[in-house]
Amino acid sequence: MKEALLSFVTAVTAEHSAAFVPEPERVAVFDNDGTLWPEQPMPFQAAFAFDELKGAVQRQPALADDPMVQAALAGDIGALLAGGHFEGLLRVIAVSHAGMTTEAFAAAVEAWLRSARHPRFERPYDALTYGPMQEVLQLLRTHGFRTFIVSGGGADFMRVWVERVYGIPPERVVGSTGRTSFELRESGPVLLKSLDTLFVNDGAGKPAAIHQFIGRRPLMAFGNSDGDLAMLQFTTINNPRPSFGLIVHHTDSEREYAYDAETRSTGTLVKALQQAPERGWHVVDMQRDWLRVF
Amino acid sequence: MKEALLSFVTAVTAEHSAAFVPEPERVAVFDNDGTLWPEQPMPFQAAFAFDELKGAVQRQPALADDPMVQAALAGDIGALLAGGHFEGLLRVIAVSHAGMTTEAFAAAVEAWLRSARHPRFERPYDALTYGPMQEVLQLLRTHGFRTFIVSGGGADFMRVWVERVYGIPPERVVGSTGRTSFELRESGPVLLKSLDTLFVNDGAGKPAAIHQFIGRRPLMAFGNSDGDLAMLQFTTINNPRPSFGLIVHHTDSEREYAYDAETRSTGTLVKALQQAPERGWHVVDMQRDWLRVF
Repeated sequence: MKEALLSFVTAVTAEHSAAFVPEPERVAVFDNDGTLWPEQPMPFQAAFAFDELKGAVQRQPALADDPMVQAALAGDIGALLAGGHFEGLLRVIAVSHAGMTTEAFAAAVEAWLRSARHPRFERPYDALTYGPMQEVLQLLRTHGFRTFIVSGGGADFMRVWVERVYGIPPERVVGSTGRTSFELRESGPVLLKSLDTLFVNDGAGKPAAIHQFIGRRPLMAFGNSDGDLAMLQFTTINNPRPSFGLIVHHTDSEREYAYDAETRSTGTLVKALQQAPERGWHVVDMQRDWLRVF
Repeated sequence: MKEALLSFVTAVTAEHSAAFVPEPERVAVFDNDGTLWPEQPMPFQAAFAFDELKGAVQRQPALADDPMVQAALAGDIGALLAGGHFEGLLRVIAVSHAGMTTEAFAAAVEAWLRSARHPRFERPYDALTYGPMQEVLQLLRTHGFRTFIVSGGGADFMRVWVERVYGIPPERVVGSTGRTSFELRESGPVLLKSLDTLFVNDGAGKPAAIHQFIGRRPLMAFGNSDGDLAMLQFTTINNPRPSFGLIVHHTDSEREYAYDAETRSTGTLVKALQQAPERGWHVVDMQRDWLRVF
């Protein structure tokens, strides 16, 4: 991977290169769950929502009537992902925080990151980013690229820590979003989170969200699942500029996890892997290609 | 205005200033229509949509049954704005371009900017930005601010020319947006514009959109109408950081236009002007305060 990446970056950034691309056009998009940090045994935001949900149900016991809430309280991530498109999971995330101000939500995320530990690695979740991918982010930025996260995860969840953890400012995070409403209170203006999903940033939604938030086609796309397939296609197929696609393949059950075809997971990777050879996408075999994982 | 602006910028950027704000936090948001360029005799995007609509109706005569389309064909912008919230206008904008690819739409915007002329000033629309506001944009950027447009106008419309005209990259444009859908065609991937509005970036929608796109409270907000009231409140009331609000008041019928309380206009300015003194917002009197307009 490293050689292909370096040679692409050199080709588009070296001043007299035939494939030179001016800085404003240098946009690279990264999926987050499974691409920049793990998504097992469940997406980290799901772990956060499950922890928060316990408090929400204590405050509003009627919530426990919802079958998706019951699945979440039982820790059954498979049930929440069964229908595809994250509806169950997003519903649980929404009910855990509806009515909260965006500031209180951000504080809850920070508090959780300080106290919660990953069940297997026993470290704070935000200490578990992939080292080789952090190097890629850094390398691209030193070559004039703007690095964006384009993830199915909630924008409100990610924006709290992306700057500290990845060096990516909040406005370069494209995520799933819910509707918020503005209120001018005695104490000042607030934005309240609601139950309404504005859009789910996954699958064919990713190119649409890239258009909506970034407004140009990326040069480079990094993903790890079929949820990133449309984003990889949008980036690399018949792009008038040079382009680069990369898939992180989770093959290392010793140091991380090995999964791909599992359907009750956010990380299903079948179609994108099949298309990789004809599309020229690079596939990283985590076990073989990464000297270190975290 | 100039003194207040310079003194604020110095206070938040001078290294040993008590009010110093680090660069990542320096976000300034600008309304576009009526703040960075005129919105009379109608918002420029409406002029574009009206021109485009004629072609659309020739191709699909049934469109002319729509009363909003009839109003547009008659050039009756008042009728389109009568209900508030731009519904009529947005409907006309949507029907003019539904089914088009985003690339074809961008090409249509560029072609129109090259050929169309403002009815009064007889110049290309994009040659009519306000000189003093261009200076503000420039000044803020040389002081480490990131300047964003937060406008009721369509993001797809603005992103085509903002970089060339304002030096603002497409991803720093927050506008009204419609749903697009991704398709992988023989010729490559496309995004198709639809009739569905995702959100209207006006009034209380502006703080919500700032949260959704930028993810932090701005330090500075510039507007010219009641559609910017919530954005000004969100920026300046009880902001833990120093903040600055400014309203451009259209008072110059000789060099530009004089309007404020007119209700069938995108530029209604009543409430925000009333609140300006208590909130400490600066009000620019265009006739008195601007040496030049364009």
